[in-house]
Amino acid sequence: MGFESMWQALAPVGLDAKTGGYNRFAWDDADLACREWFGSAAKDRSMSVVEDGNGNLFAWWGDPDAGDAVVTGSHLDSVPDGGAYDGPLGVVSAFAAVDMLRTRGVQPRRPIAVACFADEEGTRFGVACAGSRLLTGALPPDQALLMHDRGGLSLAEVLHTRARDPRRLGPDPELLGGIGCFVELHIEQGRSLVHSGVAIGVATQIWPHGRWRFEFRGRADHAGTTAMADRCDPMLTYAMTALAANKQARLSDARATFGRVEVSPNGTNAIPSRVQAWLDARGRDEHVVSDLVGAIHRQAAARARRDGTQVSLSAESVTGAVAFDVALRDRIVTALGGVPVLDTGAGHDAGVLQAAGVPAAMLFVRNPTGVSHSPEEFAEPADCLAGIEALAAVLTELAA
Amino acid sequence: MGFESMWQALAPVGLDAKTGGYNRFAWDDADLACREWFGSAAKDRSMSVVEDGNGNLFAWWGDPDAGDAVVTGSHLDSVPDGGAYDGPLGVVSAFAAVDMLRTRGVQPRRPIAVACFADEEGTRFGVACAGSRLLTGALPPDQALLMHDRGGLSLAEVLHTRARDPRRLGPDPELLGGIGCFVELHIEQGRSLVHSGVAIGVATQIWPHGRWRFEFRGRADHAGTTAMADRCDPMLTYAMTALAANKQARLSDARATFGRVEVSPNGTNAIPSRVQAWLDARGRDEHVVSDLVGAIHRQAAARARRDGTQVSLSAESVTGAVAFDVALRDRIVTALGGVPVLDTGAGHDAGVLQAAGVPAAMLFVRNPTGVSHSPEEFAEPADCLAGIEALAAVLTELAA
Repeated sequence: MGFESMWQALAPVGLDAKTGGYNRFAWDDADLACREWFGSAAKDRSMSVVEDGNGNLFAWWGDPDAGDAVVTGSHLDSVPDGGAYDGPLGVVSAFAAVDMLRTRGVQPRRPIAVACFADEEGTRFGVACAGSRLLTGALPPDQALLMHDRGGLSLAEVLHTRARDPRRLGPDPELLGGIGCFVELHIEQGRSLVHSGVAIGVATQIWPHGRWRFEFRGRADHAGTTAMADRCDPMLTYAMTALAANKQARLSDARATFGRVEVSPNGTNAIPSRVQAWLDARGRDEHVVSDLVGAIHRQAAARARRDGTQVSLSAESVTGAVAFDVALRDRIVTALGGVPVLDTGAGHDAGVLQAAGVPAAMLFVRNPTGVSHSPEEFAEPADCLAGIEALAAVLTELAA
Repeated sequence: MGFESMWQALAPVGLDAKTGGYNRFAWDDADLACREWFGSAAKDRSMSVVEDGNGNLFAWWGDPDAGDAVVTGSHLDSVPDGGAYDGPLGVVSAFAAVDMLRTRGVQPRRPIAVACFADEEGTRFGVACAGSRLLTGALPPDQALLMHDRGGLSLAEVLHTRARDPRRLGPDPELLGGIGCFVELHIEQGRSLVHSGVAIGVATQIWPHGRWRFEFRGRADHAGTTAMADRCDPMLTYAMTALAANKQARLSDARATFGRVEVSPNGTNAIPSRVQAWLDARGRDEHVVSDLVGAIHRQAAARARRDGTQVSLSAESVTGAVAFDVALRDRIVTALGGVPVLDTGAGHDAGVLQAAGVPAAMLFVRNPTGVSHSPEEFAEPADCLAGIEALAAVLTELAA
C-alpha cells in the first residue's frame, strides 16, 4: 500500500526488458493496465474514481461536487522507450501523500483528488497533453477525433474499441470549475536541483517554445564525379546550422536542438538536393527565443551563400510562456520552508490547466543525471520520499 | 536514322514530364522499350543483335565469331530521375559512328559491335554494372539471383516475367574472349573539359572509391529540458564531421560526401541517441583515399570527445583504382590529335571490362554544368557531334 508497493505493482507494465524502457501509449494494453492499477489504488483507499469524457481519471477523497477541490497527480503514459518516473512519480506520490495525511489524522476542509491525465506525452496521436487540453477546450474534440495513430486508426475508432464514447470528448466546464487548484509533482528534466544541492524545487514558469522547419535546397549531383568546388551541397549548410544552433543556445542560456533530419534522395553516392531539419528552440522569454531563432537563421543564410544553396524557414508551432500562479507558488514555497524555484522547458498538464485559468503549481524531484524520456531517467528513493513529504505538506497547507 | 532522329525516338521513353528526368530501371517497361529501340536501330543498319545470358545486347557489324572485335557502346538504364545523356549518349553515338564509317566507305578489318550493357546504374537491385560484372564473373550468378528490388521481387523472378532464363546468368568467357577492346563514350560527370576548354577527353583511370558508415552514439534526452552543457548530442559530432569531410577533400583534391543520414529516434523534441551517416570518398590513388578517411575519422573522434559522444567507423565497400589500358589510350589520344586525359570518379562498364583484362578506354563529352544523375545533365549538340566524330576516328584507327 505504501510508495514502494505501488511502484513495484506498476514496474512491469509496458516494460521493455531489453532496454529497461517503458512503452505506455494512450489506450494501448499497457495504458489500460495502468488505468486498472489506478482504479485499484483508489479502491484500496476508499477513493471513488470518476473518468471524465476525455479519459482523465480522478480519485476523490471527499465530495467531488463540493467545489474548490485541491487536485494533485500527473499521468501514466510514456514516450517510446521512456523512463519509469516521468508521470508515474506524480501519481504514485499523490496516493502516498494521501496516505500520509490520513496517518497523521489530517481532516481536509476541501475535497482532495488524485488525477491521472490521459495521453500526456502524445506519443500515439502526436498531440501532447491531449487529455487536459480536451478538458479545458484548448484542443477541439472535432480535431482530436481526426487524429490518427501510425497504424491508421483514428482516436474515435480507438475509443470505440476501448468501450469509450467518442461523443463524450470535449470541454467539461463543470469539472474544471470544481478544481480550486492543481499541484503536479514531477521528476526534474534537467539538473538545476543537482546544481542547487536540494531534493525538491517549485516551478515558476514553462518556457516559451516552438518548432521551426529549415529547408536547405541545393543541387543533386554525383558524389563521385562532382569536384568539391562545383557543388551546391545543402548538407554542408545544414551541418553548419546545427553547430550554430548549439553555439547560439549556449550564448543565450537557451535551448536549441536539431533532432529530426530528412535528406533527399538520401543516397550514399548522391549529393543531396534537399535537407529538411526541424529546430526545437526554447528560452526564458519570447524575446530570447525569437532572437535565438533569428540568429540561427542569419548564420544559416550566410553559409548558404557560401555553399550556393538556399535556405528557408517556417514556424510549425510556437507556444508562449505559461507562468504558474504566483500566490499559489509563494504559499507552497513558504510551506516547504524555502525551496529553489526554477523554470522548465517542457510542457505539462499543469501548464494546460494554468493556461485555462486554474491556479496550478509544480513540484520537481531531483534527477541525478538530468536525463528524461529515456530508460536512464532516475530519482533516488530518498528524494522520492522527500517529494511525498513535500506534497503532503502542500496538501495539508492547501486543504486542511 | 541520324543522331537527331535516334535521340528523339528515345526521348519520351521513361520520361517524367514533371521533372524532365528519366526513370529507366533494369527490366521495367521503360527498359524494355529501350531494348526494343536498340533492336530496331541495329536492324535499320543490318546489324545482327545478340543478347547474352545476362541481358547485355550486342549489335554486330561483321562476324561475331571472328574474334578481336572492336566493341563500343554504353548502357540505356538510368538512376531515379536521371538525365538523358548518362548511358544513352554512348549507345546512340556508337550507332552514329557506324553510320559515319559506312558513309565514308571504311572497310573494317576487325568486327565492330555496338554494346548496351544491362543494369549499369544498379537502381533497381542495388548493384551497379550488374550486366558487365555478370559477364566477366565479377558478380557471381548465385548472388545476383538473390538480389531483390524494393517491391520484394528477386532478379530471378523478374527475368522469368521478361521471358529470360535465369539459368543463363553468369560469365561468358567465349563472348568476352572475342572482345579485342572496348571503347565507351560517356558524358563527362564533372567540369574538367569545361576548364580545359575542349569538347572531348580520354579517361586515364577510375579513381579508387569506397563507402564508410560512421555511427555516432550519444544519449537520448529531452530537447526542451536538458541544459546545453548536460548533453551528449551525436548530431553535433556528425555535423562537425560533415564539414571536416568537405574541408579535407578540398585540401587533398579528392572527394568526400555525406549524402545519406539516418537519425534515431528522429523526433523534433528529442536529442538523438544515434546518428548514422555514410561517407562516399574517392581520390586519385588508394593513399589519398585512406589518408582522407583517416583524417575525417580523427577529426570526428576529437569532436566526439568534446561532445561526450562515441564514434565508430566501418568500411562497407572499398574498390581499388582501375587504370585503363595505356597502349590503347595512347593510340586513341594520338588518333584524336592530342586531347586532354582525365581521371573519373565514377564506375563504368568499361572499368569492369578493363578489370577483367579486356583493354578498355573511355571518351568523355563536355558537360557545361558538370551535373549528372539529374535532369540538368546536358551536352551541347555541337559537342555531341564532336563526340561522334571522335568515336568514328577511333573506330577507324582501331578497326580499319
